[in-house]
Amino acid sequence: MASALNELSATQAARWIADGRIRSEDLVRACLDRTAQREPEVAAWAALDPERALAAARQADATPAAGPLHGVPIGIKDVIDTADLPTGMGSPIYAGHQPRADASCVAMLKAAGAIVLGKTVTCEFAGSAPGATQNPWDRERTPGGSSSGSAAAVADRMVPLALGTQTGGSVLRPASFCGIVGFKPTYGTINRMGLKFAAESLDTIGMMARDPEDIALCLHVLTWSPPPQSLDDPERLRIGICRTPLWDKAEAETRAALDHAAQLAAAAGAELTEIDLPGHFSELGEARAIINDVERARSLAWEWARHRDAISPQMVRQVEHGHSVSGERYHAALRFAERARWALDPLLEGVDVLLAPCVNGEAPPGLHYAGDPSFQGLWTLLHVPTVSLPAIRGPHGMPVGVQLVGRRYSDLQVLAAARWLIRRAGLHGGTAMPESTGRHAIPA
Amino acid sequence: MASALNELSATQAARWIADGRIRSEDLVRACLDRTAQREPEVAAWAALDPERALAAARQADATPAAGPLHGVPIGIKDVIDTADLPTGMGSPIYAGHQPRADASCVAMLKAAGAIVLGKTVTCEFAGSAPGATQNPWDRERTPGGSSSGSAAAVADRMVPLALGTQTGGSVLRPASFCGIVGFKPTYGTINRMGLKFAAESLDTIGMMARDPEDIALCLHVLTWSPPPQSLDDPERLRIGICRTPLWDKAEAETRAALDHAAQLAAAAGAELTEIDLPGHFSELGEARAIINDVERARSLAWEWARHRDAISPQMVRQVEHGHSVSGERYHAALRFAERARWALDPLLEGVDVLLAPCVNGEAPPGLHYAGDPSFQGLWTLLHVPTVSLPAIRGPHGMPVGVQLVGRRYSDLQVLAAARWLIRRAGLHGGTAMPESTGRHAIPA
Repeated sequence: MASALNELSATQAARWIADGRIRSEDLVRACLDRTAQREPEVAAWAALDPERALAAARQADATPAAGPLHGVPIGIKDVIDTADLPTGMGSPIYAGHQPRADASCVAMLKAAGAIVLGKTVTCEFAGSAPGATQNPWDRERTPGGSSSGSAAAVADRMVPLALGTQTGGSVLRPASFCGIVGFKPTYGTINRMGLKFAAESLDTIGMMARDPEDIALCLHVLTWSPPPQSLDDPERLRIGICRTPLWDKAEAETRAALDHAAQLAAAAGAELTEIDLPGHFSELGEARAIINDVERARSLAWEWARHRDAISPQMVRQVEHGHSVSGERYHAALRFAERARWALDPLLEGVDVLLAPCVNGEAPPGLHYAGDPSFQGLWTLLHVPTVSLPAIRGPHGMPVGVQLVGRRYSDLQVLAAARWLIRRAGLHGGTAMPESTGRHAIPA
Repeated sequence: MASALNELSATQAARWIADGRIRSEDLVRACLDRTAQREPEVAAWAALDPERALAAARQADATPAAGPLHGVPIGIKDVIDTADLPTGMGSPIYAGHQPRADASCVAMLKAAGAIVLGKTVTCEFAGSAPGATQNPWDRERTPGGSSSGSAAAVADRMVPLALGTQTGGSVLRPASFCGIVGFKPTYGTINRMGLKFAAESLDTIGMMARDPEDIALCLHVLTWSPPPQSLDDPERLRIGICRTPLWDKAEAETRAALDHAAQLAAAAGAELTEIDLPGHFSELGEARAIINDVERARSLAWEWARHRDAISPQMVRQVEHGHSVSGERYHAALRFAERARWALDPLLEGVDVLLAPCVNGEAPPGLHYAGDPSFQGLWTLLHVPTVSLPAIRGPHGMPVGVQLVGRRYSDLQVLAAARWLIRRAGLHGGTAMPESTGRHAIPA
């Protein structure tokens, strides 16, 4: 259980602020203190404005709770526009860039009462060239990417909730590497106005938190889904174990994480079946690479024309690959992906969710490589909602997650299943830090 | 045939600039002169920078043709970001707003050698509250919207080619009202980075020109489709006449336009069949309204929170309707539309294109109402490529178009059919102004 204010979940904090048990200002101060203490090592933030956040918190404390996130601090990935904080996109091309408007997701969160604590470090343009963020569990290891700062800040108890984006595996992989809950909703359900596109037909705004209920709360605000109180605990969860065509190359801890989650679920009464994906789904990886690189090349058309020297070698390679693909081949990849989405639907008819491998092993050592996106990218291309939950520790003591996957638009079912796995089956979600992380005790 | 430089098509102009027969500077000056002469009445432009355009033209003249639009002036709808011209979105909220970067489509057109003459007037946020633009054929009538300025500028020979955007009927309707060719490509095939979203799952960047070949040229630049030289003339065009469920409410001139085009096509050897849409397609109009209004409400979340008083009453109504729709109902509309897209594919199997009504009548009198989007919006929701061609004059002498519709990703086939209808069947595309419009004669 949380023993300091900065360890509270967003749901708990919002409830207690609305009740008057805690003040938003104290919560924000606790998060800022934790950040001040840890940021020199973790480097999760691209921009912070403590005074602005504290002023917003005092204003929240002076008014009755008007929205479900009233007074709750959040982090925003730095490829998402903010009108009062610079948006640097992890690129020198946008150093100090100040957008005119908040992205729609930011405006909607603010309208629900949330307080933007700051912008979190992103890989360059939500791609694969990492920023300075370290994994809070082991500073010699990557936090994953591209939503590196959001994952690290949430894992390190600097903030209870943060937005990320996923084009390949940029939410779920860092969430798994940092031992928190990552969620990528159904493609198209969160408005992307004000997001710098990586690859437009894949980019999905997602969330990171330490509790699936916080994700459901954020989803309620951003997609007008029913409030998390209405999340139904499934009576008898039907889980399809889906090892995917990638299983053969999965590390031992990836397999162990899935087996562990499956065993806990079975012991808690879930009904398990094995589900195989059609053989041609193995081609989805190549289709995703084509779509990703063509769309990256186009999304960066202005930067390519005007600031090519300031683009990383990794991104240059992707853009150049994109330029080598014909329009016809790109359209064929889009159509292939669409047909696969339709082929997936009947496979999911007999189950509530799929349980699938999430990442290939623990967070690798070094900060230069944010990890392999293939285990997450498959589902991103399929546009389905997917959540990662910490499941086990790997051979180096690092968290390793599993992912739950649902039918398109069944986002709440996926989150309900995640909560069931944690609460009923005992899967260790919301990995606790070894000792209390904050100095601001929760008032009795 | 063109008798003045500003009447040239983009294709012709690009060829002659590359050949050295004409200079880009003379062409740009001809377009600027025409604009100076007519703009006080037509009011097509939201921002113009003649000196910058002329400087770019001189630079083009000083270098060998490096791209397929080398030295060709274009117009850009003012909801699309430009790094060197303000982007006002037809809203006082963005008056004088200067984006940091060019939208990807603008950067790609510039990389192909195009010169941005200026930004064209848009209805507020590509919605239904019109700007000051008048119809060049009758200044008492609307040019249509929301791509009002692009349609009027192209029709009035101020520029050969302009970008618009279509969320309901915002490219094809003004194109029809102004007697030019409008094209909405397959959804998702032109990158939207730097576009202010109206409704994200409908918004499609499109083009306006006086010749379908110019559209094919622009499409080649923006989607990497094969160059227009490879447009195949269909041997025996198979046309499905699709009156749509809206036929019953169609004005007489709308019906006459379709019948006229069908007769010409039949006389020229096309094979005509009648194609009925499934009955449930009549519900697409309501689905589109739900999707449109929910997504508008979200796209304008920041403006709604911070500048509500500066939003037009029309847009306020749409946003408020959007807010009244639950997330579940919105998702149901998205799924309904997706199923309809799949249901359409087999209907189109036996034909090359559909011939459908385009607009409900001539451009209506008055500048306060940009016309009914339902005849175009049906196809926008279905994500199919569609082109409008001027077909007849209505009872008040105003142009009335028809539209050709194809399967998704068959954009080039649709354009080939459009060219066939003009060249082989004699449908009057590229409606000529009654007299020569420019003072810059084409050199012999």
